[in-house]
Amino acid sequence: MPRTAVPNVLAERYASEPMRQIWSPEAKVLRERELWIAVMRAQRDVGIPISPEAITAYEQVKDRVDLDSIMARERVTRHDVKARIDEFCELASHQQVHKGLTSRDLTENVEQLQTLEALRLVAHKTAAALARLSLRAGGYADLVLTARTHNVPAQLTTYGKRLAMFGEELLGAMEQLRHLIATYPARGLKGAVGTQLDQLSLVDGDPAKVAKLEERLLHHLGFPAALGAVGQVYPRSLDFRVVSVLTELASAPSSLAKTLRLMAGHETASEGFAPGQVGSSAMPHKMNSRSCERLNGLHVILKGHLTMASGLSGDQWNEGDVSCSVVRRVVLPDAFFATDGLLETFLVILEQMEAHPAAMERENLRYLPFLLSTTFLMEAVRHGVGRETAHEAIKEHAVAAAKALRDGLAAESNLISRLAADPRIGLSQDQLAECLQLGLTKTGAAREQVAAFQSAVQRLLPSYPGAETYQPGTIL
Amino acid sequence: MPRTAVPNVLAERYASEPMRQIWSPEAKVLRERELWIAVMRAQRDVGIPISPEAITAYEQVKDRVDLDSIMARERVTRHDVKARIDEFCELASHQQVHKGLTSRDLTENVEQLQTLEALRLVAHKTAAALARLSLRAGGYADLVLTARTHNVPAQLTTYGKRLAMFGEELLGAMEQLRHLIATYPARGLKGAVGTQLDQLSLVDGDPAKVAKLEERLLHHLGFPAALGAVGQVYPRSLDFRVVSVLTELASAPSSLAKTLRLMAGHETASEGFAPGQVGSSAMPHKMNSRSCERLNGLHVILKGHLTMASGLSGDQWNEGDVSCSVVRRVVLPDAFFATDGLLETFLVILEQMEAHPAAMERENLRYLPFLLSTTFLMEAVRHGVGRETAHEAIKEHAVAAAKALRDGLAAESNLISRLAADPRIGLSQDQLAECLQLGLTKTGAAREQVAAFQSAVQRLLPSYPGAETYQPGTIL
Amino acid sequence: MPRTAVPNVLAERYASEPMRQIWSPEAKVLRERELWIAVMRAQRDVGIPISPEAITAYEQVKDRVDLDSIMARERVTRHDVKARIDEFCELASHQQVHKGLTSRDLTENVEQLQTLEALRLVAHKTAAALARLSLRAGGYADLVLTARTHNVPAQLTTYGKRLAMFGEELLGAMEQLRHLIATYPARGLKGAVGTQLDQLSLVDGDPAKVAKLEERLLHHLGFPAALGAVGQVYPRSLDFRVVSVLTELASAPSSLAKTLRLMAGHETASEGFAPGQVGSSAMPHKMNSRSCERLNGLHVILKGHLTMASGLSGDQWNEGDVSCSVVRRVVLPDAFFATDGLLETFLVILEQMEAHPAAMERENLRYLPFLLSTTFLMEAVRHGVGRETAHEAIKEHAVAAAKALRDGLAAESNLISRLAADPRIGLSQDQLAECLQLGLTKTGAAREQVAAFQSAVQRLLPSYPGAETYQPGTIL
Amino acid sequence: MPRTAVPNVLAERYASEPMRQIWSPEAKVLRERELWIAVMRAQRDVGIPISPEAITAYEQVKDRVDLDSIMARERVTRHDVKARIDEFCELASHQQVHKGLTSRDLTENVEQLQTLEALRLVAHKTAAALARLSLRAGGYADLVLTARTHNVPAQLTTYGKRLAMFGEELLGAMEQLRHLIATYPARGLKGAVGTQLDQLSLVDGDPAKVAKLEERLLHHLGFPAALGAVGQVYPRSLDFRVVSVLTELASAPSSLAKTLRLMAGHETASEGFAPGQVGSSAMPHKMNSRSCERLNGLHVILKGHLTMASGLSGDQWNEGDVSCSVVRRVVLPDAFFATDGLLETFLVILEQMEAHPAAMERENLRYLPFLLSTTFLMEAVRHGVGRETAHEAIKEHAVAAAKALRDGLAAESNLISRLAADPRIGLSQDQLAECLQLGLTKTGAAREQVAAFQSAVQRLLPSYPGAETYQPGTIL
Repeated sequence: MPRTAVPNVLAERYASEPMRQIWSPEAKVLRERELWIAVMRAQRDVGIPISPEAITAYEQVKDRVDLDSIMARERVTRHDVKARIDEFCELASHQQVHKGLTSRDLTENVEQLQTLEALRLVAHKTAAALARLSLRAGGYADLVLTARTHNVPAQLTTYGKRLAMFGEELLGAMEQLRHLIATYPARGLKGAVGTQLDQLSLVDGDPAKVAKLEERLLHHLGFPAALGAVGQVYPRSLDFRVVSVLTELASAPSSLAKTLRLMAGHETASEGFAPGQVGSSAMPHKMNSRSCERLNGLHVILKGHLTMASGLSGDQWNEGDVSCSVVRRVVLPDAFFATDGLLETFLVILEQMEAHPAAMERENLRYLPFLLSTTFLMEAVRHGVGRETAHEAIKEHAVAAAKALRDGLAAESNLISRLAADPRIGLSQDQLAECLQLGLTKTGAAREQVAAFQSAVQRLLPSYPGAETYQPGTIL
Repeated sequence: MPRTAVPNVLAERYASEPMRQIWSPEAKVLRERELWIAVMRAQRDVGIPISPEAITAYEQVKDRVDLDSIMARERVTRHDVKARIDEFCELASHQQVHKGLTSRDLTENVEQLQTLEALRLVAHKTAAALARLSLRAGGYADLVLTARTHNVPAQLTTYGKRLAMFGEELLGAMEQLRHLIATYPARGLKGAVGTQLDQLSLVDGDPAKVAKLEERLLHHLGFPAALGAVGQVYPRSLDFRVVSVLTELASAPSSLAKTLRLMAGHETASEGFAPGQVGSSAMPHKMNSRSCERLNGLHVILKGHLTMASGLSGDQWNEGDVSCSVVRRVVLPDAFFATDGLLETFLVILEQMEAHPAAMERENLRYLPFLLSTTFLMEAVRHGVGRETAHEAIKEHAVAAAKALRDGLAAESNLISRLAADPRIGLSQDQLAECLQLGLTKTGAAREQVAAFQSAVQRLLPSYPGAETYQPGTIL
Repeated sequence: MPRTAVPNVLAERYASEPMRQIWSPEAKVLRERELWIAVMRAQRDVGIPISPEAITAYEQVKDRVDLDSIMARERVTRHDVKARIDEFCELASHQQVHKGLTSRDLTENVEQLQTLEALRLVAHKTAAALARLSLRAGGYADLVLTARTHNVPAQLTTYGKRLAMFGEELLGAMEQLRHLIATYPARGLKGAVGTQLDQLSLVDGDPAKVAKLEERLLHHLGFPAALGAVGQVYPRSLDFRVVSVLTELASAPSSLAKTLRLMAGHETASEGFAPGQVGSSAMPHKMNSRSCERLNGLHVILKGHLTMASGLSGDQWNEGDVSCSVVRRVVLPDAFFATDGLLETFLVILEQMEAHPAAMERENLRYLPFLLSTTFLMEAVRHGVGRETAHEAIKEHAVAAAKALRDGLAAESNLISRLAADPRIGLSQDQLAECLQLGLTKTGAAREQVAAFQSAVQRLLPSYPGAETYQPGTIL
Repeated sequence: MPRTAVPNVLAERYASEPMRQIWSPEAKVLRERELWIAVMRAQRDVGIPISPEAITAYEQVKDRVDLDSIMARERVTRHDVKARIDEFCELASHQQVHKGLTSRDLTENVEQLQTLEALRLVAHKTAAALARLSLRAGGYADLVLTARTHNVPAQLTTYGKRLAMFGEELLGAMEQLRHLIATYPARGLKGAVGTQLDQLSLVDGDPAKVAKLEERLLHHLGFPAALGAVGQVYPRSLDFRVVSVLTELASAPSSLAKTLRLMAGHETASEGFAPGQVGSSAMPHKMNSRSCERLNGLHVILKGHLTMASGLSGDQWNEGDVSCSVVRRVVLPDAFFATDGLLETFLVILEQMEAHPAAMERENLRYLPFLLSTTFLMEAVRHGVGRETAHEAIKEHAVAAAKALRDGLAAESNLISRLAADPRIGLSQDQLAECLQLGLTKTGAAREQVAAFQSAVQRLLPSYPGAETYQPGTIL
């Protein structure tokens, strides 16, 4: 019976090709072979007899990855690493790899390499997202918007400031990610229970040689740090740390996406459409936030991955077991696929999102009058009206105008015209309109905050060449 | 650039072929076509004009599923359901499907069908597991074992009783699963926002006809119940309920697996080996619990799926959105793949697990004497020794024997020989040995509890024909 | 140094007094004493010699609960159950309680009693919530509302139908809760490792007597079912099941609350205010959804409790340990406090929530014209206009009107007036208005769905006398 | 009706007094008052007219915290911050606090202060734990132990190395904690929607003055950093980061505790007992791991808190709402109570834990022979025996000895005596014993790894004066 193939939906529908390549079965085999070769070179360097011809022979065949052949071997040996050793050795016609190694010396380091490479890809895309967010925040720095708390209007802000707010949150998460990458430690070659016994045996028990061998290898692989005392495995709380940083990274995009979904409901902004795309032929006003919803969904998935990763940490029995194996097969690739898909989606949103300034202004005008009632009072007094008289009149109209709005009797607040029509207050429509105009400038330090965010992004970008111009792939 | 393919690791490595088929992309397309055909039939029945020829034409081509062709269409339409409609219609040379339906009328019901079918498969395998567990519990009903609490010896029990204990937990979860299957409600044909407006339009607004149409369809599909007032989607707390039941179902197997891992450490039991398999050529005593560890890992994964599912529930905005879409694409199939893999692994363990009675007896003898100190006291008194004299002597020896064990001075408790050698106590080695022998029978109602568990399983099995003889697939 | 007291914030700020009483330290002591007394009675019934005077003596002092005195004893004995035995015995001047029991025979059953009682309280309040929701759904059954999917307008529905939608979800969860209560099994008196050895010893090994003793006790305590083969503890997946049902129960209220927060942003509805309360003195239009936000927060907390409970399940070592102890001390009471607070908050919202029909109508009018473009077309054709001419003209105006709305050039859609002004279409303002009026009735089967929900609630309520008139407490 | 009081069980039973004080209701009121005073001082510095007398008056009454009086006010105002303002002002007979502040300017910063203080307390205790762990690892640096993978014997290691392994994991988490503390940013005074509008109004719109005011305040409070662009609230992903670091911190102690529970089952080690404490009077050999179990339970609780915290992140609507409020009231204090209780428990375990060298040696001897079979072979050949003859003989005995062990026919491996008795091999009992003795030294780089761990701890400790001698409180 032919076996039904089921693709990894996160990889296939959401992640980008470079991320798929990092975690593909073929790439893993290739990376393992490269690690074996690097180990042989380092072993040669400390005096273990391995012929240069053997190394060359392995080098020449390393790209010939045949998963079916390997799987056929695994069905016989019932041991996955043994199957991959046999395949590689037969291809090279040598038997020199895996000397003094246990399976975990191979697999742990290779999985850590994949993790590190994936983290770097994520950092690059986050830098790209920050660059775009900075651009957007700058572009909308003076676009006044009614800020909402509890989902109802509160004070004015600018749209640029709102974006900078989420941008700064993302910057904070990026800082965590950079710290993680800069300090991410490899397990190294530690043997079956972590004592390095087998490598030591190969070099007549000389700890200095083993240290040199390991250092050379890890340097070659590009790890910034290494663990010392480990067991069969590196501590799984390190995997937890990785997934936790990815989950934090998703927070700012997720909040921004949620806010865009809310704004779409008010028609003040939308995630935009690709050129040529229409919302709905039947309902041309419809601005579905499909990408934003997807982004929020990917965040939910990451939280599930976090639960999986936290389920592994703190559960090491003695020098380790493999109850983590199946979990890590799922959670490591999938958390990165989800993060990658989330960032790709985020970049598309940042590229295509649209603001609707007219709708924003409509909201501002609708709600602003209420915020200015005390200003009107002071203005009336300045023009010679008695304070108590003015206070009573203004309050009367404010309550009535609010009620009219709530009851739908008015589409916009008619507070201004009410006040203008009331002789007790003594302010003309023009005078009131001037107050209102002035009120529209009350966005505090919004502009300065946007500028500060942009500077922070500018300081970061030189570390990520190419990020500023990175183009996300097409999303489904 | 060729696209890197990444398989779903849970499906590929752990789940069985029938579960893969339920969730395969091809099967989904086929099920959608069957639903469309069923809808056309039901629509005809209530008087909507659809020609029998059209239905026949669709019937004849429904098995011709070409995912690539559909994906090519989706890239143009940017709408997945539209692409599948077009493909099916072109194959049949008719345009009669999807009349009065919205996308969710199709996709929600089909995903629920997959869910229901998967639940039934899980129930069948759970029944198979209970049958085997019952067999094992019966087989070991009289095998005395030192029960442990806090991981240290506590009292005697039997191995059969220990297995029945986990078995009864599984029975409880099975009862939840059966309740879920028996009451699982379909969303039905409810239209874009749940008001059935579009179906009503097709039948001139006659609610009775729409009710009949829907009832006929759901009956045809085999749903036990249907929802009434829904939105664009059925409530996501229903998905949560499904994943929650699966997570509970994994608990008893997981506890049993963890206990087997502990027992393997004490060499009292192991998960067993396939014929011909050896633990480790270097270390013939090694009994690695790989399958048990895997089972525990799959449970950790399910807990992550539960977090994902709980992240969807209680988050419906108005009549619904699609932030759940990506999550459900992952969590529904994957939770079932994990559960299926877990049950397959569990069945293999139940098939191959081995008890080591000699090691159990060694433990019993090692710890039993301490449990019997008061029995020895009463026996000494019965033979005429003063109570206080005997008490003092026994306590002295018990403490010394425990200390000797802890300090490793003795491999087994020497309490009995110590007591026999002390003239103050007046009991011979034989008399003491008799007490000990009697002590070994102190397993309380263990036997009755095993029998009760077995009866409960017997009552269940007739509902699952074939379960008792179900053979799990080979696991990697 | 005086010890700083920290109250349980869920209990103190959100839960009701009856729920606090169930989980209070005093109530637990009292329940334990009642269980001891019930055990003594049952033991007497099967022939174990316990004097009636002793039982009476215990009865008379059972209400004298002095936590400080018990804690002082615990500091000496370092064993909490021993401390409570000593206290009770000294008060009664007898030493007859806890005969043949282990600590878990006491604590497990008492905690299960608390759980069952708390579940019943939750069911009662859920019935109360359903009664109110039914009332609200009925009251708003004809209030037409623009349904939203993706948070943007989709089709018409009624507000009553929207409420019934969440109501039906709650009904489904209620059904789960009722099933749980009806089948919730007690651990019973099973002894240190679950074999009932110690109770058997008291009755000369007669299993029938032990069965009778246990049955009598559980019947007295009011459990609907009992477990058979357990270890030191009952399976922790049972706690998981409880928390899982509570989490599902929170979903419908949480979705409704989230939707109300969205509606408040559009001023179409609000959670309402207590009489005399104002939103904000500075901003009289402000309708903060504090209670809805709180409800959503309590749901988030429950999901955390679910993670805790799932962390216990499947982690039983052998016959059990107490790594679950601290978790259950937190999760059992707190999950019920959170649920109780959530339901109390929900009931207040259901009591005070307000709809703003005028604002709803404004939305309907704003979006309806777009939904009716094909109706206009058919009407024009019916009046003799060429189909292609009319189609082109209508499409032109629809796109322009949508753009005007989006760009804020119009506060409401001017599609109708545009069409009326275009001679190509040949429909008068009145004819178009009539179409529009008719369009406003397109709410499908909304009314029938509301009625069906109300009937289901009516069938449920007789099982919960008093629920219909239950008044929630004042919330902070 | 008197209100039933329910204490916070994590605070009451597990956390230490200093941690309780940080989160006590009284301490929060006091901290708020101190923040208000600090704001007044900073406001004076930038020219806002506030009399020194007023500040002095507030200073003098700040310690008079009366929670009942505040609660009585809250019941009237229905606004918690307003109640606390009124109480403080009435005590001081001034009305100068909270000028230009919104509630969140007060509460966010105070909660962040509590968080920072609690993080510092956690870091101190972690340093204390590392100091003790280093001491223990050093003490057991040469104690040879059978390392286990898959819970079965694998190779030799030392107990010191095993402890250093968990120690290094804890060091890694400590580094995360230190990074978090060093970069933890305060929200600062940002006003109702984050634009600083109200503070700007007080200083005639001068951004430099507002910046100076805020900087002075945050410096006074001791924050290492500040956020720029925020909304009503700081991003909740910052709370997630805090809980995530705490969860990671718990991993190493949790793995060590789990391993101790396993070792107790083998009697090779135990968590020890307080002087005078006995395991169980009935069973003197019993070494219950109650503290280790508790520690594992507290880790499970933290994972639930993590789910709660992750439920808040990425869920900000616009400039923020208070759906996070109830969650943060629970999760912030409780995650710290759980962590504090976990560290206190861990310190007690590290203080009291006991190794049982004799039992370890027994295990080593039991399993070592199998590990040395190839050594025996080479030795036999060196003494003139034919390789194939020796190989066959040794394999024969190894398999038989393993089977005897598994079947319980031998308590210890009899491989050595078997080999000695077989003339085909030609090695005497003494020669074989010598091999065995040498085998016992095969602990690889264990000693160097312990030393490296100890050095790392030594480099850390000077930053935490007093940590090395910190004594945990008595645990229940």
